[in-house]
Amino acid sequence: MSGVRAVLFDVFGTLVDWRGSLIADFTTFGEKTGRAGDWAGLVDAWRGAYQPSMQRVRSGAEPFANLDTLQRASLDDLLEKFAIEGVSAAERDWMVSRWHHLRPWPDSAAGLAALRAKKITGTLSNGHVALLISLAKTGDMGFDVIFGADIFRHYKPDRETYLGACALLDLPPGAVMLAAAHNSDLAAARACGLKTGFIPRPSEYGPSQQRDLRAEADWDVIAESVGALADKIG
Amino acid sequence: MSGVRAVLFDVFGTLVDWRGSLIADFTTFGEKTGRAGDWAGLVDAWRGAYQPSMQRVRSGAEPFANLDTLQRASLDDLLEKFAIEGVSAAERDWMVSRWHHLRPWPDSAAGLAALRAKKITGTLSNGHVALLISLAKTGDMGFDVIFGADIFRHYKPDRETYLGACALLDLPPGAVMLAAAHNSDLAAARACGLKTGFIPRPSEYGPSQQRDLRAEADWDVIAESVGALADKIG
Repeated sequence: MSGVRAVLFDVFGTLVDWRGSLIADFTTFGEKTGRAGDWAGLVDAWRGAYQPSMQRVRSGAEPFANLDTLQRASLDDLLEKFAIEGVSAAERDWMVSRWHHLRPWPDSAAGLAALRAKKITGTLSNGHVALLISLAKTGDMGFDVIFGADIFRHYKPDRETYLGACALLDLPPGAVMLAAAHNSDLAAARACGLKTGFIPRPSEYGPSQQRDLRAEADWDVIAESVGALADKIG
Repeated sequence: MSGVRAVLFDVFGTLVDWRGSLIADFTTFGEKTGRAGDWAGLVDAWRGAYQPSMQRVRSGAEPFANLDTLQRASLDDLLEKFAIEGVSAAERDWMVSRWHHLRPWPDSAAGLAALRAKKITGTLSNGHVALLISLAKTGDMGFDVIFGADIFRHYKPDRETYLGACALLDLPPGAVMLAAAHNSDLAAARACGLKTGFIPRPSEYGPSQQRDLRAEADWDVIAESVGALADKIG
């Protein structure tokens, strides 16, 4: 991996624990405001609505809109479906804003710091730049560069994201690695010529996670943590 | 300035000493390769060719090309004009690459670190992302985000750069400050609604500098260093 000059990270699930963070935030919110609710169910369903929302942008059925907009739009239906009543517009906006303050996995910040001493590090996320800056500051994760979907006005796995990031790095795809906890993201990156690093996150989707428990292809590097990835490509 | 959420920095001249760095590099190069040359004159003329090169892009006469490309194109004529002979293509590429390794002014890195604890910090430069990443790593300057001309495919003072950065920050222009050593850059930012911070760099252009020695308008903040700027808007 000595030819790898830059490592770009998927963020949701790979670096931050979106599910655990949101369930904790909303459970506290429910307790404080006297609302019972299946917060875990809501969070899972919200994340479930994420791919269809982005697909409407990818297909061209809807113009590019950032994740705050997509997630705000899907939240109204989900609150109704989960019979969580009386949540004001301001409270809904607050719920969306919690996606900007997700906690990193315990190994993320230190692993990123170790890797940054050796390589260019960055994000390559379907989050937007403002959200990613907030996550980085919240979680004390330092990067050399932030690439988000709004720079490319495309969502992964559209090729414009992977190849757009390589173009901005002024590097050939073979000198850039995508690191992700999701086999499908890595497959799309590999199809564009990028190197691939798999970091399994077996509790990302909760205790009964079925997907992405293991590498489904011969990814260039497989590592149990960001720090282990840094060691392997250093 | 409590409403300012993000401070974006011009880089060439504001954070890094392009002139002193390049003259030192090329003087050493000349000594090592046995070439006499008016390196200071060459560097000044090279920088002088910078605005006309970008203007051909701004006007639409040429498609967007990054600074490496523009500076490589202007170098050939200048080497001939300064009668510096026998510089190979590889050496010319090396000369262009030195723009990626300019030294920061002595106050830049520490001042940026202090400011970053309080605000979102970033670049807003006519350099391209790859060059800016290199400058940041070379100079140990940490930023929350890197905005370069190739993200917008426009050069400052085109409005697309200032307003494009605000859009990616998801902030109104009035919550974003441009910090720069150049009155014209600040005037363009103010015309887009951004806040403005002036940091004079009276030796940027050498001992006989005539321009930008002082603030030419009532910029929102005037500070003698990045650290002083951080103090004033903290």
